[in-house]
Amino acid sequence: MTGRYDYIRDGAEIYRRSFATIRAEADLDHLAPDEARIAVRIIHACGMVEIGRDLVFSPDFATKARAALLAGKPILCDSKMVANGITLARLPAGNEVVCTLSDPAVPGIAARIGNTRTAAAMHLWGDRMAGAVVAIGNAPTALFHLLEMIDAGAPLPAAVIGLPVGFVGAAESKQALAGDGRLPFLTLHGRRGGSAMAVAAVNALASEAE
Amino acid sequence: MTGRYDYIRDGAEIYRRSFATIRAEADLDHLAPDEARIAVRIIHACGMVEIGRDLVFSPDFATKARAALLAGKPILCDSKMVANGITLARLPAGNEVVCTLSDPAVPGIAARIGNTRTAAAMHLWGDRMAGAVVAIGNAPTALFHLLEMIDAGAPLPAAVIGLPVGFVGAAESKQALAGDGRLPFLTLHGRRGGSAMAVAAVNALASEAE
Repeated sequence: MTGRYDYIRDGAEIYRRSFATIRAEADLDHLAPDEARIAVRIIHACGMVEIGRDLVFSPDFATKARAALLAGKPILCDSKMVANGITLARLPAGNEVVCTLSDPAVPGIAARIGNTRTAAAMHLWGDRMAGAVVAIGNAPTALFHLLEMIDAGAPLPAAVIGLPVGFVGAAESKQALAGDGRLPFLTLHGRRGGSAMAVAAVNALASEAE
Repeated sequence: MTGRYDYIRDGAEIYRRSFATIRAEADLDHLAPDEARIAVRIIHACGMVEIGRDLVFSPDFATKARAALLAGKPILCDSKMVANGITLARLPAGNEVVCTLSDPAVPGIAARIGNTRTAAAMHLWGDRMAGAVVAIGNAPTALFHLLEMIDAGAPLPAAVIGLPVGFVGAAESKQALAGDGRLPFLTLHGRRGGSAMAVAAVNALASEAE
């Protein structure tokens, strides 16, 4: 069944041409090769080459995040869309993908700490935070609260994908992450971000295959 | 635990301020009230008010899609991220949310029809297509193939959320949808789109609560 439309129907060829277009059009000159590979996948997920120049990586992010995944550390996600979007077959060590948002304890914790359910859910990550990759693609409150939890003594993750999206706190929480100094990070300053970008970053880190 | 950052920690207040900011900044004057409500949620999902003027609704989209959901019709999704992102509690009639991408029959169908797995998976929608809401937030091949399946006699959905993203076929598939004439549709022309936007459109249609 070829139909009346002329389009590319081969998945591998679609990926190849997509990534070639992104590398031809996006400004990635400020990035190291491993950072550029992550940037290409994030751009692929949103259709916007122009974000290439706005992505910010701390110098140790790609190395620390990749090492954590190779060491089998978990990926801690702020939303179910992030957790569900990660391609498990790409993960190098059968890494656990964690989203605690649906846990029945969350509403009670949220009431106790006076924060959103997303922020509250992070209290259930527990010791899994130590050396983990944290992927935040939805809630600014999650990114702010991550920093607060570390202030309060929570274990340090290996790296933070800080890509919350939106109009209330997103830009500010990403500035706080970038200025924090304790955490290797990837972010996109401003309002843009989202679960698809966070997933793309994890999928890029998980395997060097394009 | 308030911590050292000053940010809004109340989920309902975050939504309220977010939507107020979007309505203040986005150009939604070309949209009817029910379309604007959908646009606000899509903008909320991506953090970009500038897409407001680029969203295109066929005149019957909002009415037909909302009626289908009220009638209990299923929501057919091209990706697991779209299916998993839909807030089930907002759906008005316990609507089934369908993604057939993981079905073991999909690779065989893809080989037989010479198309992507995402396009192949739609062949498993079967009679559920009749009067359904189709939500495409990932694959241009899915949107092209939907039109081909209807050419070949597949049942007409009630409405199509056509928001595939990317660099190969996304813009072209959305042009094909908008020019088709058989299907009430919502789209965003060009490369931008994605699962978060498609989910936001479904969640807006599912309930009039903001």
